[in-house]
Amino acid sequence: MSNQLYAIAEQLEKAIRASSDFQQLKQAYEAVRHDETAYRLFTNFRDVQMRLHEKQMTGAEILPEEVEHAQKAMMLAQQNAKLSQLMALEQRMSMVLADIQQIAMKPLEELYRSFMETE
Amino acid sequence: MSNQLYAIAEQLEKAIRASSDFQQLKQAYEAVRHDETAYRLFTNFRDVQMRLHEKQMTGAEILPEEVEHAQKAMMLAQQNAKLSQLMALEQRMSMVLADIQQIAMKPLEELYRSFMETE
Ligand SMILES: [Ca+2]
Ligand SMILES: [Ca+2]
Repeated sequence: MSNQLYAIAEQLEKAIRASSDFQQLKQAYEAVRHDETAYRLFTNFRDVQMRLHEKQMTGAEILPEEVEHAQKAMMLAQQNAKLSQLMALEQRMSMVLADIQQIAMKPLEELYRSFMETE
Repeated sequence: MSNQLYAIAEQLEKAIRASSDFQQLKQAYEAVRHDETAYRLFTNFRDVQMRLHEKQMTGAEILPEEVEHAQKAMMLAQQNAKLSQLMALEQRMSMVLADIQQIAMKPLEELYRSFMETE
């Protein structure tokens, strides 16, 4: 990677770290970490999700009880104020990162599009 | 997204477009587009890949003949000098973009890691 690209990537990293979206997300994680109930609901929800995801990836059978269990864990997590705040901030951060990605990928998208148009 | 993040994303876009990796990739696409044989091999290879990918996504059965056909299309494409050049430059560009992504994602990775470490 060229030095210029590297320098801009590092600037981007610093700007993301300094952004209010990131700082708020960090605070939301800290709030969850210091709240025993929220933290337990979070790790439970994450473990249930990870087990389901693993089964999906390996093509293993997913039982209706497991889907129900996952939905219940999600519902309990969303009912917790600290966790619903965390999830909302996660989603906002994801959108910011997707926007950055979309801008950075424009040159390649244009290249592919103009190549396909010649068919 | 904050104005500062937006401005850096746009700088990144310009730097990618101006990079020698991108410029060489663009030239490689133009070389393929202006070479009838290379272009036909490329579109054939891409169509075969897309059909296989679609089958994988929908869980449809993939016949051994189709795998063979895809391997042959790949081999023919790789034997074409303009296409093997294009594929090598594609791979280099992907690596540059992955490096940028990795740098930009550091703040979030650190956040998740420090959260998990408290378990
Ligand atoms: Ca044409
Ligand atoms: Ca702990």
